[in-house]
Amino acid sequence: MKFTAQQSDDGVTERLFDLTVAGAVVPGVLWTPEAAVGPRPLLLIGHGGSQHKLFAPLAAYAKNYAKTFHYAVALIDGPGHGARTTQEQSAGFGEKIRQQMSRGEGLGGEVLERMMQWAGQAKPEWQAVLDAVQLLDIVGSGGPVGYLGLSMGALSGISLVADEPRIKAAVFGLAGLHEGSQVLAEAARKLAVPIEFLLQWDDEMVSRQAAMALFDAIGSAEKTLHANRGGHGGVPPFERAGWMQFFSRHLGPAIISP
Amino acid sequence: MKFTAQQSDDGVTERLFDLTVAGAVVPGVLWTPEAAVGPRPLLLIGHGGSQHKLFAPLAAYAKNYAKTFHYAVALIDGPGHGARTTQEQSAGFGEKIRQQMSRGEGLGGEVLERMMQWAGQAKPEWQAVLDAVQLLDIVGSGGPVGYLGLSMGALSGISLVADEPRIKAAVFGLAGLHEGSQVLAEAARKLAVPIEFLLQWDDEMVSRQAAMALFDAIGSAEKTLHANRGGHGGVPPFERAGWMQFFSRHLGPAIISP
Repeated sequence: MKFTAQQSDDGVTERLFDLTVAGAVVPGVLWTPEAAVGPRPLLLIGHGGSQHKLFAPLAAYAKNYAKTFHYAVALIDGPGHGARTTQEQSAGFGEKIRQQMSRGEGLGGEVLERMMQWAGQAKPEWQAVLDAVQLLDIVGSGGPVGYLGLSMGALSGISLVADEPRIKAAVFGLAGLHEGSQVLAEAARKLAVPIEFLLQWDDEMVSRQAAMALFDAIGSAEKTLHANRGGHGGVPPFERAGWMQFFSRHLGPAIISP
Repeated sequence: MKFTAQQSDDGVTERLFDLTVAGAVVPGVLWTPEAAVGPRPLLLIGHGGSQHKLFAPLAAYAKNYAKTFHYAVALIDGPGHGARTTQEQSAGFGEKIRQQMSRGEGLGGEVLERMMQWAGQAKPEWQAVLDAVQLLDIVGSGGPVGYLGLSMGALSGISLVADEPRIKAAVFGLAGLHEGSQVLAEAARKLAVPIEFLLQWDDEMVSRQAAMALFDAIGSAEKTLHANRGGHGGVPPFERAGWMQFFSRHLGPAIISP
């Protein structure tokens, strides 16, 4: 893992890194408390379709977890996203998503197919990032790891969390079981850690039925569905506060060194 | 309102009262912080079928709200419950509920019919209790009021909250729209305040479909469904902590007098 830039602001240190995985350069970012010494819980955040590792709302949550809970938080540019694509391709993919939404068709066809392909590719990348980050003194290998990902971030995360025993709790949502989602369904059934699952009651991309089917498939003994009014982009702010409660319950507080 | 007994323990004062409403004596209990001076938010808790105003788990939450948030909390014996019935009748009704559950039939027939009848009767009783309690210095009429009720407590609460502008937020759950539930559906559509709605994924008494239909009918702009694995009696403990977050967000903290 090669660190390419580092800066600190408001008590949080941001480190950009590149990690080569199976020939591909995966760019990522790690946030930790500025005064971090020793191991701590680690939260992985998987961004949504057409977003990237420094997408402002995700970076804001990440910094908040580092600042409030003293967690380490990592994001990567998913396959086909951020620095791993051109602005033109990224805009083109975003436009395809918007068109599907405006036609009221829901997630499907080429867009879903590409997201599932990227999700499969992201899994070994996240595992390599986890390996590398856990070698750092300020993260360590002993602490619990969580995963937070909505929409495409959930598609990527479900198979990762299903196969990765280091991850102890996850927030997923804004995703569903669509026709031909056998791989996703199988991964969901393998999940065994506590899951909080977000559903938007009027989601233009994921039908209520598809989202319910995905929640139903989750194998975990502890799983909670949170459904709210509103569309794909309208998750209410109080749910974000709820994720902090969830992770604090399952990953625990960081041990602050004296 | 006639107070019949008062005791304080662990910083919380418990007052038993009787209030005559439309010829019926409604026995109730009010918990407040022992040092309470001046107005504060008020939480009404509607007990479930075959429970009563001092049902231990509800009394424990009530005292916790009084102690932690400095709220006033009121419960009453619902019609046909607690001191308003004989032990024999109460045991008989509880047995009917258990039989329905063990037959896997879900809530219906005579049990549901009686619950809905009691719910209709409870509404003016709760309104009279609200009037009386708000006259007390330690509650006052200016503060926000919340309602928490599951199962029969939700059936009673939905029409109360729909028609009672003093109630600003409510937690409902473990209830659904069954055949012939027009009155309940109409009340749910009239709801306009923030609602948190609990659904148990494997509820023996309320089908997933009936519970979803009730959540769907709720008219409020802010409504959140929380679904967890388990049966009617298996709401996970972390949901109770979530209710405190919800009420704290909507009723605010009590103003502690110096």
